[in-house]
Amino acid sequence: VARWSPDARERLERAALDLFQEQGFAATTVPEITERAGLTTRTFFRHFADKREVLFAEDVVPEVATRMVTDAPEGLAPIEVLAEGLRQVADTRFEGRREDLRVRRAITATDASLQERELRKWAVVRDSAAVALHGRGVPDTEARLLAGLGVAVLEVALADWLAAGDDSDHRPLADYVDEGLTVLRRAIAPRPGRG
Amino acid sequence: VARWSPDARERLERAALDLFQEQGFAATTVPEITERAGLTTRTFFRHFADKREVLFAEDVVPEVATRMVTDAPEGLAPIEVLAEGLRQVADTRFEGRREDLRVRRAITATDASLQERELRKWAVVRDSAAVALHGRGVPDTEARLLAGLGVAVLEVALADWLAAGDDSDHRPLADYVDEGLTVLRRAIAPRPGRG
Repeated sequence: VARWSPDARERLERAALDLFQEQGFAATTVPEITERAGLTTRTFFRHFADKREVLFAEDVVPEVATRMVTDAPEGLAPIEVLAEGLRQVADTRFEGRREDLRVRRAITATDASLQERELRKWAVVRDSAAVALHGRGVPDTEARLLAGLGVAVLEVALADWLAAGDDSDHRPLADYVDEGLTVLRRAIAPRPGRG
Repeated sequence: VARWSPDARERLERAALDLFQEQGFAATTVPEITERAGLTTRTFFRHFADKREVLFAEDVVPEVATRMVTDAPEGLAPIEVLAEGLRQVADTRFEGRREDLRVRRAITATDASLQERELRKWAVVRDSAAVALHGRGVPDTEARLLAGLGVAVLEVALADWLAAGDDSDHRPLADYVDEGLTVLRRAIAPRPGRG
């Protein structure tokens, strides 16, 4: 067993995902993961709090949501800050990882505690985005509403993007995000001719 | 111990909430709850799957979300179905229960598993509303987006309504829902003079 390995994290992730797929999340132990990866459990716990976290550690973290909002140019309307932030998250954190994300999603679907962890992840991202929007001067309630809307749009976009076929015309996640915002904009606008 | 009690459920709920407040959720056992209520554990498990469910059983259930959408008059735009459904949920499931809901929310805030259960509740309500909207002919993606928006609005409205002071001018939850929809409508509308 190597004492130090520069790619330890990736090897642990690969081994864990493979084992979760082969024998199920619940049946897989940390020692099995480390044995498969050729590393020690001590190394595992330097990288992950538990086996559940292997599935979530690489995902959109609250810091990313915060930075996207904080770094947006001044003078943008809050919805434009949000839309631009969502597109950037799509491009930098999800694009190019479709197969990997499908595998993770399929594993998550098999276990209630993983599903709850997934929901918590989105709630934390939402709350971070709300705090960051409020920090830009958006009133508190509006900031929380926009953050909730943004996460709702991203969740739907992600599900549709992951579910889409792999033929030549598959489109980037950012397109799904834009379409989601457009659909909602049309849906909640007052209907013409009805005041 | 009474063999049958018509108000068993309410007594168990009262006893559980009191004990959760007095000594904490984690420290409270089902036998303690039933002893306080003067009922048997057998009766407890006829009403609740576990102590966690005492906090969630009386809340907005997916069936309510489904019915609100399904029963809405024909010819309403999807956003109007959603808005009317949210107002009805506010009026029939939350209004008049502010103190009780505050107590439950304070207990939920103390425990990670309760918070995750709360998130799962909202996710299930959202998914039920999406299925019901789709059943009315709303395209699948739009239905899921609107359901996500609706739950986001209700969550923010509920938080602000529960946090509001108890002075004479406190307003019904349905008003917070309407305001949330108005804020989002304005926020995501194209800005005048910017095409």
